Amino acid sequence: MEITRRELLKTSAAIAAVGAMSRVARAADDPLPSWNEGISKKAILDFVHVTTARSSPNFVLPEDRIATFDQDGTTWVEQPLYSQLIFSASRVATLAPQHPEWSTNPFLKGLLIGDVEAMAKATIQDLETIGDATEISMPVSEFQSLVQKWMATAKHPRFDRPYPQMVYRPMLEVMGYLRDNGYRTYIVTGGGQEFVRVYSQQVYGVPTDQVIGSALETQYEYDKDGKPFLVRTKTLLLNNNNAGKAKDINLFLGKRPHAAFGNSTGDQQMLEYTQGVGGASLEMLVLHDDAQREYAYGPAQGLPDTHVGKFTQALYDEAKAKGWTVISMKSDWKQIFAWDK
Amino acid sequence: MEITRRELLKTSAAIAAVGAMSRVARAADDPLPSWNEGISKKAILDFVHVTTARSSPNFVLPEDRIATFDQDGTTWVEQPLYSQLIFSASRVATLAPQHPEWSTNPFLKGLLIGDVEAMAKATIQDLETIGDATEISMPVSEFQSLVQKWMATAKHPRFDRPYPQMVYRPMLEVMGYLRDNGYRTYIVTGGGQEFVRVYSQQVYGVPTDQVIGSALETQYEYDKDGKPFLVRTKTLLLNNNNAGKAKDINLFLGKRPHAAFGNSTGDQQMLEYTQGVGGASLEMLVLHDDAQREYAYGPAQGLPDTHVGKFTQALYDEAKAKGWTVISMKSDWKQIFAWDK
Repeated sequence: MEITRRELLKTSAAIAAVGAMSRVARAADDPLPSWNEGISKKAILDFVHVTTARSSPNFVLPEDRIATFDQDGTTWVEQPLYSQLIFSASRVATLAPQHPEWSTNPFLKGLLIGDVEAMAKATIQDLETIGDATEISMPVSEFQSLVQKWMATAKHPRFDRPYPQMVYRPMLEVMGYLRDNGYRTYIVTGGGQEFVRVYSQQVYGVPTDQVIGSALETQYEYDKDGKPFLVRTKTLLLNNNNAGKAKDINLFLGKRPHAAFGNSTGDQQMLEYTQGVGGASLEMLVLHDDAQREYAYGPAQGLPDTHVGKFTQALYDEAKAKGWTVISMKSDWKQIFAWDK
Repeated sequence: MEITRRELLKTSAAIAAVGAMSRVARAADDPLPSWNEGISKKAILDFVHVTTARSSPNFVLPEDRIATFDQDGTTWVEQPLYSQLIFSASRVATLAPQHPEWSTNPFLKGLLIGDVEAMAKATIQDLETIGDATEISMPVSEFQSLVQKWMATAKHPRFDRPYPQMVYRPMLEVMGYLRDNGYRTYIVTGGGQEFVRVYSQQVYGVPTDQVIGSALETQYEYDKDGKPFLVRTKTLLLNNNNAGKAKDINLFLGKRPHAAFGNSTGDQQMLEYTQGVGGASLEMLVLHDDAQREYAYGPAQGLPDTHVGKFTQALYDEAKAKGWTVISMKSDWKQIFAWDK
């Protein structure tokens, strides 16, 4: 049952192909060309300057240059539903013929007829059902292979583009700019670690060992030739949301980041923890206030409420009180997607 | 209660000072001068050659060059007891006046009078008692500070040297040689991750984010100024022994190593998992067969049995069957410690 590395590399090329438009060029005189001039862009440029200039009192040693990025809603689109959940929905459709009992579950039935409205109203219980039904009890490599095939072909329901093209060009520019200045860029996602690792290199230029996410326990087994492989189990080992993000950053890295980017209440503690690093730090939150080019949701600042990626007024107030920067998609971003000219 | 990074850096300099003798110079014409010529040395040199020569069919891409090292008994002395346990014993002594009930526990009583024989006979239950009594329910940074102070001053009971000098010079040479050839070297220890991270940079040149070990759950709390910090709890999150080593390597890195070094049955699965990487790999086990210069224990090959770092005959037989290399301390290592001329 185990999928070989060679097989995984084949579909990985397909992801790189659909994601090619997301790669961004940055001019030497402006490392952030998709950003309008303003407070947000200045905050990034100033942070890099004060932490990397040798003469700066806030100089940060190269080994301590760590920047963490939430994924869903921060580096790519999370509406109408998290990509991983849409992947699971596609798995439900594939597996449905073997599970006649699913046709009596209203939520799974909604998924099967591609009802995005029904999908957006999913409860936690629904999400657990779908997760249990589609993502567990298989070798890690088999799960990776399913994700790869999906990522190379599935398209976003509104924008009709493959998911690797749903990344925000301004955030790719920030990641590249930080890396050019000696920062290591980590994805720290509430989503599944094994899911994101499948495409993190192709989509973000982030290697698998710089992806921290929610994770299931695995089990160590042997195939018929006595070769060991790991199988996903049903037990959640890491819930990488809220305080889990701070705890898992400590678990994986043993040090605090100097920069953190998020967009929802699930990122609050990661930003607080980052600010406690001592010395200069940068904390940024993406506010989705652009219904025309992307989506508009909060409920902070009177934006519509949402089940996916909630940005509360309390988080907005904390950001203002602590000197974090709130990025307005509408006014800070000249361009959102690489293909969106 | 939180210890600042600045305070931690102070004692870290003290560890570097006592460990200074462990740093090794390697000549350009012989990257492994402490190794006698033979099968073991040749296995290392051959592995590096075939995985890094561009023309080699077994060439490994730089991003996939990962080597993992068990710590206790593989990179430094683990007899008569694991260093972390001796650290805990020193904590028991410090805390004893506040815990009169400990004086009725035979094991803790043995610790208090420095009875190494009693310590070596510790049961799992004893170890849990000592761990619970001394290592938990404190901020991560406070624990790190205690370890730092201990590492800078404590001495090995037989060799009367600070612990940073108890590392094996031949293994430091291998780590440096691998790094010079583009490998990232990870410590993958059954010991506590937070313990090893305190000195990994000074002793091994390994940064905190390349230390994978057993780990406790942490709790996210705020100090009186509203600043967040992490507190160690009593719950074991990762038991990084046996199959745990393979699982945690996947959890942290998302890929298999190409080289793995161990010395006991706790390393079996890490070596098996490494061998399954596809392409060239190197698996090595240190056999402690030198009672004069270090210790002699197995019970493999008729060596005395041990409670600490057991190397069974079954593991020895697996090594021979699978083409792993067993390092004989006695005949493969010209020199064991940097100070041992």
